[in-house]
Amino acid sequence: MATADQSLFSGVPPQAVHLAFEAELAAFIDRHDVELLQIDNSLRLVTDAARQSVLAGGKRLRPTFAYWGWRCLLPSGAPGEPLLIRAAASLELLHACALVHDDVVDGSDTRRGQPAAHRQFAAGHRNAGWPGDADSFGAAGAILLGDLLLSWSEEMFAAAIRGLPEAPAVAATAQFDLMRTEVVAGQFLDVIAQARGDFDVAEARRVIEFKTSRYTVQRPLSLGAAAAGAGPELLTELARFGRALGEAFQLRDDLLGVFGDPALTGKPAGDDLREGKRTVLLALATHAADHSQRAVLQDGTGNPSLDAAGLDRLREVLVDTGARAEVERLIVESAESATEILRNADIRPDAAQALQELISAAAHRST
Amino acid sequence: MATADQSLFSGVPPQAVHLAFEAELAAFIDRHDVELLQIDNSLRLVTDAARQSVLAGGKRLRPTFAYWGWRCLLPSGAPGEPLLIRAAASLELLHACALVHDDVVDGSDTRRGQPAAHRQFAAGHRNAGWPGDADSFGAAGAILLGDLLLSWSEEMFAAAIRGLPEAPAVAATAQFDLMRTEVVAGQFLDVIAQARGDFDVAEARRVIEFKTSRYTVQRPLSLGAAAAGAGPELLTELARFGRALGEAFQLRDDLLGVFGDPALTGKPAGDDLREGKRTVLLALATHAADHSQRAVLQDGTGNPSLDAAGLDRLREVLVDTGARAEVERLIVESAESATEILRNADIRPDAAQALQELISAAAHRST
Repeated sequence: MATADQSLFSGVPPQAVHLAFEAELAAFIDRHDVELLQIDNSLRLVTDAARQSVLAGGKRLRPTFAYWGWRCLLPSGAPGEPLLIRAAASLELLHACALVHDDVVDGSDTRRGQPAAHRQFAAGHRNAGWPGDADSFGAAGAILLGDLLLSWSEEMFAAAIRGLPEAPAVAATAQFDLMRTEVVAGQFLDVIAQARGDFDVAEARRVIEFKTSRYTVQRPLSLGAAAAGAGPELLTELARFGRALGEAFQLRDDLLGVFGDPALTGKPAGDDLREGKRTVLLALATHAADHSQRAVLQDGTGNPSLDAAGLDRLREVLVDTGARAEVERLIVESAESATEILRNADIRPDAAQALQELISAAAHRST
Repeated sequence: MATADQSLFSGVPPQAVHLAFEAELAAFIDRHDVELLQIDNSLRLVTDAARQSVLAGGKRLRPTFAYWGWRCLLPSGAPGEPLLIRAAASLELLHACALVHDDVVDGSDTRRGQPAAHRQFAAGHRNAGWPGDADSFGAAGAILLGDLLLSWSEEMFAAAIRGLPEAPAVAATAQFDLMRTEVVAGQFLDVIAQARGDFDVAEARRVIEFKTSRYTVQRPLSLGAAAAGAGPELLTELARFGRALGEAFQLRDDLLGVFGDPALTGKPAGDDLREGKRTVLLALATHAADHSQRAVLQDGTGNPSLDAAGLDRLREVLVDTGARAEVERLIVESAESATEILRNADIRPDAAQALQELISAAAHRST
């Protein structure tokens, strides 16, 4: 089940925690597989897809940040740690829902180098030789699968968090609730920005804040810290840290989506450009472009049938306008800001060291 | 906000509880509206759609059954009742998600007499004069809206149920979890049956069991009873009752979808036939049809552009094959079975009387 993806955190101890995330997720899915197959054998289509979407790789970023949020206050092996690890792992079910639904919304063909869930359901339909429209079946299956994963996320989270003392359990649940509202809000902002067709750097950065910084780093980190009993001051510091690190992470993601190696990223190079994804990179290029460069950007982005030569022309404009260099600069700036906040935060030294390694990994990764 | 829909339970006291459901839902949505609009004003598109999908009518069936499950053991005004009412109301957010996503999957135009959520988002796109594809925007918006409603359902449920003593809270949560897995399982069975194109009466009844009986009646009832401290024996009895009543409810729904008055049901007559919905009614007709009747069924069902004359030909076959009469007979049988279980159950007399009225309402309703 391990993939190249997981190398992001190969340098960040403890490996046992990462294996525990996998084990918790596998045990949860196994249990629900039995439940579904007892209802009907045809639901193997669903259990297979759930397994694929949750257990076939992924960086486990959100569980990792939740774990290190907890470890900001508590040593390894503190009472409640197994429950926190289970609650943290549940965030991967939420994320699997987000990816499955995102791929339907974006009409994406692949995910982590495999066919996206809706394409898998459509292929299942075709292989079975069923009549009717395989693509509609694929979309329906993926929408339902995402709903199931979202319900399961909460089921797993609530069952684990209930075992902690009441006050920290309630505080962690509040972060979990905010996380779920904010990620949908961020996705809406993204979809609306895309629909409007006009956007600027400030708007692109705000989409990042909600769709990535808060969802991927800030809320998971705060959730773990709150579960360990963090007070409001530390939560505020961790929120600032999360925003900075999340921005570095997303900006790197945007560069990888355009300039990355598909063999490492697991997604076709240039798909972000073909989709017209509203990135800070693209906003900066649009802002700095001259007349002919702007024409290249307008013709090329959001064009699903853009060929390799067209992609290269776009990449050239992203480089020549200075947008790529500016994004690299912003990544360094965010990473330095995160480092500075970390240096002054009142947290355990082992957690500070791990979070520092996560900054480097997020800012400099190639997957 | 009250609609003709709610007349289903006008005879079942207490009206104050139904108003409390509405008040709890409105307060929850109001609070989250503020949260979303603080993120960005453009999210009014989302808050409006959430409000419309939750507060613009609906029978509040699931909260009602949860309430009467609780009342099977406890008198009106027992401690914890406000929390149970809030937890019960949260089931409407789950149901709103199911309807919003269902309408995307089925490509339905309307819901409760209003444009379906994805059509509303698409209309918003067109009215704003945005470039790009309004229908894709509509589907994306509705998928995200459903995810938000599903998250909110759990948030509202968990926050309320946490206030009850631990053992009944855990037992009620187990029913809530099963309810969410089972409804998606039921929808999958339905989608798979539809894709396969072949189905029989037994399969149609099993789809009903999971998609409706358990989801609409059995789990909500068990959830309320478990929250009140019901033991395993009573839960088993209520499950049997729920299955019988749920079947009566769904069979009536299937008849109304074909023969009902659109002014009362809020959905265009015949849409179930145009969609090719795999109902027991249709399964019975297919089983009993002669050669020419089968041809009418095969040509007409699942044909989105079927005209009024075509619908009438289908209705004629559903009557002439005896399918309509057989479904009416099954409704009577299920209602009698539910009544019999109720008579022997060890529950409070006022709850028994209310549940008896709900049997009559579900079996004989016209909306």
